[in-house]
Amino acid sequence: MNTLYEIELIKQLKARYFRTLDTNEWTGFGQCLTVDCKARYRGGKWSFDSRSEIVGFMKEHMSAETLLSMHTGHHPEISVDKNGVTAVGTWYLHDVIINIEHRTILTGAAIYADEYRKDSGEWRISKTGYERTFECLEPLHEKHRILHNMFAG
Amino acid sequence: MNTLYEIELIKQLKARYFRTLDTNEWTGFGQCLTVDCKARYRGGKWSFDSRSEIVGFMKEHMSAETLLSMHTGHHPEISVDKNGVTAVGTWYLHDVIINIEHRTILTGAAIYADEYRKDSGEWRISKTGYERTFECLEPLHEKHRILHNMFAG
Amino acid sequence: MNTLYEIELIKQLKARYFRTLDTNEWTGFGQCLTVDCKARYRGGKWSFDSRSEIVGFMKEHMSAETLLSMHTGHHPEISVDKNGVTAVGTWYLHDVIINIEHRTILTGAAIYADEYRKDSGEWRISKTGYERTFECLEPLHEKHRILHNMFAG
Repeated sequence: MNTLYEIELIKQLKARYFRTLDTNEWTGFGQCLTVDCKARYRGGKWSFDSRSEIVGFMKEHMSAETLLSMHTGHHPEISVDKNGVTAVGTWYLHDVIINIEHRTILTGAAIYADEYRKDSGEWRISKTGYERTFECLEPLHEKHRILHNMFAG
Repeated sequence: MNTLYEIELIKQLKARYFRTLDTNEWTGFGQCLTVDCKARYRGGKWSFDSRSEIVGFMKEHMSAETLLSMHTGHHPEISVDKNGVTAVGTWYLHDVIINIEHRTILTGAAIYADEYRKDSGEWRISKTGYERTFECLEPLHEKHRILHNMFAG
Repeated sequence: MNTLYEIELIKQLKARYFRTLDTNEWTGFGQCLTVDCKARYRGGKWSFDSRSEIVGFMKEHMSAETLLSMHTGHHPEISVDKNGVTAVGTWYLHDVIINIEHRTILTGAAIYADEYRKDSGEWRISKTGYERTFECLEPLHEKHRILHNMFAG
């Protein structure tokens, strides 16, 4: 088992997770998760016990044309077990969510604690969740303009 | 060929690309690109077909003392071909551009699709470009103050 | 010596440095530094010559319940010496500091230049510092609200 190689694969998995989340590619997003994946976002405020629950929630709450999000994950601290079958990881989240309808911008930071499992030869997230360090909400500036929105026709 | 080592070299290449861009080190920036590098920024709105065109454009548009930029690239998903001579990569861009003269701040996110080529033993970017997820423009707060500007005397 | 493995360890070291800084875990933060660590933040404006000086300063200036910070480090360019005992690294810092009491938000970017040393088998930061590319200060929007603050009761 090449630990560094497994760590690189897990980093790329998390990269796909964030990319598909913000581009609303829900099939690709679901493939990042094990079928029995548990999620505890915001210290457990949002709690889910399967891939379908997580994808369903995200699809419902994150895929409006009026909702622009940027989730970036920094500073991975990943450890792979000796057999290369499970792993744990910490990430530092920075997120920005612009609600065009309500004209608000939410910004925050959080520490992610993840678990990963090799599933038919592929790493997936088996447990995920984060604790906020902080979260802020403010109105958009009255002259704030969206120059580009990938979801708008 | 050690794939992980090549991936690490490409990450460091992209690191130099962003660092030299924001610090306006145009010689170092040019060295990140192959001579025939193609660039298609903002879904092709800005389109260039050589290193000299790309460097020329950046030099002209990004090197004013009144323009402060932060380009950070996240979530690399890099694959190297079997011979270790070419590679492709995806990055998640977060950018902020403060225009002191116009008193505006532009913020955005985008997905980069890059191609890399080994050129006299060194990785360079042979094709680059991104598609915006979103881009926003707003006026600077009337009490917004620049405490430090590396380009100001 | 496996260079890539040492580079990964140094990335995880810097990850702990930023995580413990923003979560105010000062014991963990101190363990990221050699006892004789030198720090030159903001081009030397803040200058320290030992772990205890650095930790003391951070503890005093960064651990108020009214101070929320996000420090993220991007684009590591790390080189390890041939013996795997010392290393140097560049990082691109993005930082945000919200002062709830003064109702201000400071944002900035900087280029970090670090030195690392293996110390009883563990990498630590032996010298650190950054040069700002820019730094801005503005008032918080009058309707800016903190929805979550990990330091508030």
